[in-house]
Amino acid sequence: MSVALDVERVLAGLTLEEKAALTSGSDFWHTEGVERLGVPAVMVTDGPHGLRKQAEDADHLGIGNSVPATCFPPAAALASTWDVDLLDRVGRALGRETAGNDVAVLLGPGVNMKRSPLCGRNFEYFSEDPALAGDLGAALVAGIQSQGVGTSLKHFAANNQETDRMRVSAEVDERTLREIYLPAFERVVTRAQPWTVMCSYNRVNGTYASQDPWLLTEVLRDEWGFEGLVVSDWGAVVDRVAAVAAGLDLEMPATGGRTDALVVDAVRNGTLDEAVLDVAVRRVLTLVARAQPALAAPAQIDVEAHHALAREAAADGSVLLKNDGAVLPLSAEAATAAVVVGEFARTPRYQGAGSSQVNPTRLDDALTALRTATGVHLPFAPGFSVAGVAGSEAADDAALLADAVEAARGAGTVLLFLGLPAPDESEGYDRTHLGLPANQVAVLRAVAAVNPRVVVVLANGSAVSVEWQDDAAAVLETWLGGQAGGSAVADLLLGVRTPSGRLAETIPHRVEDTPAFGNFPGEAGTVRYGEGVLIGYRWYDTRGVDVAYPFGHGLSYTTFGYTDVVATVTGEGPTSAVRVGVTITNTGTVAGAETVQVYVGDPEAAVLRPTRELKAFAKVALAPGESRALTFDLDARDLSYWHPGLHRWVVGGGRTVVEVGASSRDIRGTAEVEVAGEPLFGPLSAESTVTEWLAHPTGSAVLGAAFGEATAALDDTMLAMLGDMPMRVIASFGMGGFDADGLDRMVAEVAGTTGTAAA
Amino acid sequence: MSVALDVERVLAGLTLEEKAALTSGSDFWHTEGVERLGVPAVMVTDGPHGLRKQAEDADHLGIGNSVPATCFPPAAALASTWDVDLLDRVGRALGRETAGNDVAVLLGPGVNMKRSPLCGRNFEYFSEDPALAGDLGAALVAGIQSQGVGTSLKHFAANNQETDRMRVSAEVDERTLREIYLPAFERVVTRAQPWTVMCSYNRVNGTYASQDPWLLTEVLRDEWGFEGLVVSDWGAVVDRVAAVAAGLDLEMPATGGRTDALVVDAVRNGTLDEAVLDVAVRRVLTLVARAQPALAAPAQIDVEAHHALAREAAADGSVLLKNDGAVLPLSAEAATAAVVVGEFARTPRYQGAGSSQVNPTRLDDALTALRTATGVHLPFAPGFSVAGVAGSEAADDAALLADAVEAARGAGTVLLFLGLPAPDESEGYDRTHLGLPANQVAVLRAVAAVNPRVVVVLANGSAVSVEWQDDAAAVLETWLGGQAGGSAVADLLLGVRTPSGRLAETIPHRVEDTPAFGNFPGEAGTVRYGEGVLIGYRWYDTRGVDVAYPFGHGLSYTTFGYTDVVATVTGEGPTSAVRVGVTITNTGTVAGAETVQVYVGDPEAAVLRPTRELKAFAKVALAPGESRALTFDLDARDLSYWHPGLHRWVVGGGRTVVEVGASSRDIRGTAEVEVAGEPLFGPLSAESTVTEWLAHPTGSAVLGAAFGEATAALDDTMLAMLGDMPMRVIASFGMGGFDADGLDRMVAEVAGTTGTAAA
Repeated sequence: MSVALDVERVLAGLTLEEKAALTSGSDFWHTEGVERLGVPAVMVTDGPHGLRKQAEDADHLGIGNSVPATCFPPAAALASTWDVDLLDRVGRALGRETAGNDVAVLLGPGVNMKRSPLCGRNFEYFSEDPALAGDLGAALVAGIQSQGVGTSLKHFAANNQETDRMRVSAEVDERTLREIYLPAFERVVTRAQPWTVMCSYNRVNGTYASQDPWLLTEVLRDEWGFEGLVVSDWGAVVDRVAAVAAGLDLEMPATGGRTDALVVDAVRNGTLDEAVLDVAVRRVLTLVARAQPALAAPAQIDVEAHHALAREAAADGSVLLKNDGAVLPLSAEAATAAVVVGEFARTPRYQGAGSSQVNPTRLDDALTALRTATGVHLPFAPGFSVAGVAGSEAADDAALLADAVEAARGAGTVLLFLGLPAPDESEGYDRTHLGLPANQVAVLRAVAAVNPRVVVVLANGSAVSVEWQDDAAAVLETWLGGQAGGSAVADLLLGVRTPSGRLAETIPHRVEDTPAFGNFPGEAGTVRYGEGVLIGYRWYDTRGVDVAYPFGHGLSYTTFGYTDVVATVTGEGPTSAVRVGVTITNTGTVAGAETVQVYVGDPEAAVLRPTRELKAFAKVALAPGESRALTFDLDARDLSYWHPGLHRWVVGGGRTVVEVGASSRDIRGTAEVEVAGEPLFGPLSAESTVTEWLAHPTGSAVLGAAFGEATAALDDTMLAMLGDMPMRVIASFGMGGFDADGLDRMVAEVAGTTGTAAA
Repeated sequence: MSVALDVERVLAGLTLEEKAALTSGSDFWHTEGVERLGVPAVMVTDGPHGLRKQAEDADHLGIGNSVPATCFPPAAALASTWDVDLLDRVGRALGRETAGNDVAVLLGPGVNMKRSPLCGRNFEYFSEDPALAGDLGAALVAGIQSQGVGTSLKHFAANNQETDRMRVSAEVDERTLREIYLPAFERVVTRAQPWTVMCSYNRVNGTYASQDPWLLTEVLRDEWGFEGLVVSDWGAVVDRVAAVAAGLDLEMPATGGRTDALVVDAVRNGTLDEAVLDVAVRRVLTLVARAQPALAAPAQIDVEAHHALAREAAADGSVLLKNDGAVLPLSAEAATAAVVVGEFARTPRYQGAGSSQVNPTRLDDALTALRTATGVHLPFAPGFSVAGVAGSEAADDAALLADAVEAARGAGTVLLFLGLPAPDESEGYDRTHLGLPANQVAVLRAVAAVNPRVVVVLANGSAVSVEWQDDAAAVLETWLGGQAGGSAVADLLLGVRTPSGRLAETIPHRVEDTPAFGNFPGEAGTVRYGEGVLIGYRWYDTRGVDVAYPFGHGLSYTTFGYTDVVATVTGEGPTSAVRVGVTITNTGTVAGAETVQVYVGDPEAAVLRPTRELKAFAKVALAPGESRALTFDLDARDLSYWHPGLHRWVVGGGRTVVEVGASSRDIRGTAEVEVAGEPLFGPLSAESTVTEWLAHPTGSAVLGAAFGEATAALDDTMLAMLGDMPMRVIASFGMGGFDADGLDRMVAEVAGTTGTAAA
């Protein structure tokens, strides 16, 4: 591998059969090599929050049997940091481990939207908001790729559930795709150019993503400028020839040459242009060439440093949901008088199941971490059995509960570790409800009955209902914390570190309140995205649905003040921009970090828009009393919606509401600006309505002349009734003084003046 | 017209040009005649709650200038009677007026679903529930047609809004169409065979209803057995030739021969089979022939009797929403001490605007009716200005409010008449909010502040928000009461008649709570039916959304007890039936009528089903202390859902919940039965999942044999992950011990045994 690959030379020397082979895997994890031309096979492995590199002799079914690697917190926790710098640093560490293990591409991150909290794979995804997911995903990708290895941005696209994921057709209108389900991918592609994008299994509006030319070529390459390679999710290719034609460069895993032969046949019989195949081959060879330097001189891996980074990420990704009476942080005294309850304190739930499952280099548990930090052998009671935990599954819940109550009675503080059992959350299937197991809630109820100072520490990969929260003085949502989550929790509980995580996903009260309820996970092979652009907080805020904890929420051990919120607008139409200013002050007594969120609302839009949408954010660390002035620049895209008729972004303009806040429901300052929108009028025809003709500069004149005296005979109600009538109907009713022929002449008259916008 | 038309003889004698002409109108309101063959032109006129027959010399734009006819309450009020017998009697009266005015077809009723309370034409429609709308629509059609004239069931189909109604494409999945938007039409067609069905303006999933062969022929005729004629909504034909081919028999209104010429050309150049045109001609001639006897010997119209019937219908269609402290009915003393407030008491709002606007034979106002009935010149204050009411629009609201407060202060009871101004509700456009005008709510607030005995009488064609209801002791929702609404209200307020109306549509708290919020009225030419089957109470009950007043709700001056709720099941699969029994007792002291509602829930269905769906109802009049045992027979269809994969009705079976109640949220008795569902398994292929193979009798055996030892290596989580994997992917991963070729052999092995059901 020491000699750089000359891609064009190799391509020129390949046989058709070799080209077909190169565009599919050689086995489960490797690309094909061509020895006679010096093309090495390179390895790709699962991610995204750690390397899952299977040992050479392992069956790929044995998910746990991979080489040890740092298990960083999965995306659900990483996203809750809202910290692009941290994501970059985690990315760099992941990149070093990738290169250091002779792997060319880490298969991640996943930036699909959390359409429903029930999606079994939500722990691998960032957020219900595309701007947040996109910014964080781009930082992670840039970090990984800075180490000379590649990433695979997945799962492209509209793969927002596990149920029937390999066949289901996501029925999503274009505006919803453009505003919600594609922008996170777009941000990562345009900002960080991932080496590869992984197409998803599912269909989008009827077409398999693996063979959708609109997705894989028009949108991804022609519009966004993606320069890398498109790889299939493992087994996602249904029709290899159609996939190659659509822009799929690499099929994984190997098919024993079966689909390669189909490609060869297609080229031979003329149904596939060899030039199209050459493009894919060139991309595969380019990928191999790009990986060569890093693989030739792999980075050293500092296992301890990576563990420390994982601990930092786990702490900053934990969200302090409530903290009544400032029960947290525990004082030194309180800490030594605490009792620890809950199996998860000693048997951490720290990552999800499926292809992302990492074999960690170490594993911290909170119980040990707390005992070490306090220097006290704190009492412990497991409290409940946990499915999937050996030695716990079959335990007697009644006895465990009784023990827990005894331990809690008279204790200073009860640190109660609850969470979802591992089998509840996995790639491959979805949850069916939002609840914690009943045996865990029962322990909380019983313990709270004897001790009011209960701190609940949650471990779960996606939102759970918190209908029990009145029984907890404090709730710390740690998501899944990775291998250092246990010590990170201890850091937070003891005040060694101040919580700074913010919710990247709303915590709803009930599954019936969630946007996709009734439409998730679909039926008979299709899933209707009936809620449209109203997912996550866009739904709850626009419909005014009460939630347990809103998007962006998270407490600290200090407090922050927001002052001097201002917004100024420049430009107009497609050159519009808004600059937002705010000053943040740490108004408390300890250091901490605030995540400032900038939302935009467009109440006068021609289409229904969410009440507010996140457009920018920043995480700022401040010492007590310290202030910082922040500036956010919103561009025209931030002020736009996707026009479903014009099929492009449009600055609708008008009154625009800029909100700066600490969550979507904790707005600290509002500024309104008037944006000069694009004048919009379409080409006119006989099917255009009276209203559309009246909105058109020339059309209104032509119509007015034709209507003439007929107008006077119409009262207001009739005029209102006429507005939505196509001119064809007006003509057929004889209402406007013109018949079908007259209308034809009017259409001809305005034909030369049609267009979609004129400033 | 005295000689019966010989349809086949006439058809045989027609030229091609005459055929084309016969299948379109001769003017705005008449069919074409063929004098030389003795074919008369017949007239059709707007309905549906009264005849809108324009005088011969009137411009069709002048909506109000029609010949006097009884204005019965529009459908919103008729539906609230839940009284099929009454609807039949109203229908008979409408039929007599139709025939008596030399009109062959009354253009109604409309049975579109109330998808959103904002739909501007909701007053013309019955309900948010298809069973209720279908039963009532069928009764009305049967009544009208018993008089020898025809009806036009409209607007077929999925015309659930006015915004962009002439172009918008209703994007609705088939299951939702079948379960929600089509069944009311289906019930009316199969039970009452309307002479005509009117296609709607809009598109359904991209195809104009006027030229949709699936709607107009496959569903309407082939499946439901419709025997009548399909007429276009006025101006709904976009492509006449395509429309004729799709099953459109009559284009209205006339196009001056322009589209007739297109039909002639199409037949001549072979793009339209003349036999297809002949079918349409035959249907037009048949319609004319059917109308001949009634038109030849028109019924006498008893104007007084019809007015009395309109009064009865208005009273029974009014819904007593609340009645705190039994403020209603007013005692004789209380009545004479009442004060009347609100412009609507003297200027009734009694019907909606647009094509259904009737020129009434008389018009009762509540103020006069109350004064007449009490024999007292009750004080009156208009209270507020009303848009659209001459002499009121420009009045000074502050002065009116002050006068009303003075009138209310110290009065016994305040009868406050509120409602939507006429311009708020019309054919042709939709409402944009649910509220009453602010000047009216202000009067309520002010009056309630000086007098706690405020009775609000509402007049509106579709649900309004009642966020002000705490200021009212009683609320009587009269909808739009037709020409006798004023005296009907007096009957109810004074206890001459006991309220028996029940809500045919939910009254929500806020527009944000409504099912279609965010998807209504759509954008850029399409409207996504994102809520699917969850419309009306199906949405509120299934999602657990709080409402102001639930579907089916309505108070009486007496009370009713429900006892002995039982359900017994017979048959299995497609022969399943459930008999439901309940005994109803008038437990109060005055006579009254109760509407007993039977709901069915199917919690174990393979698709998401509403918590409950109305399947049967009965209105029973009972003297105080009287009991009656009722029996309802539910058939297999009542127990079925539309299977989106099999494209047919399926009895899913399993635990079935039968609820008997006085509203969807006032369930008085529940019985559960176990229904033996149809065993469902589809044909297997390589794209079928592991779960589907395991569910198939032969497939599971073949799969088990193939998996063999590989099965043992899989833990539970892996098995859960595999369930949704297509066998193609299992083969490509080598997980099952078979490759693609092996899978092909397995598929061949089960091929002989595939099918969709075996008992």
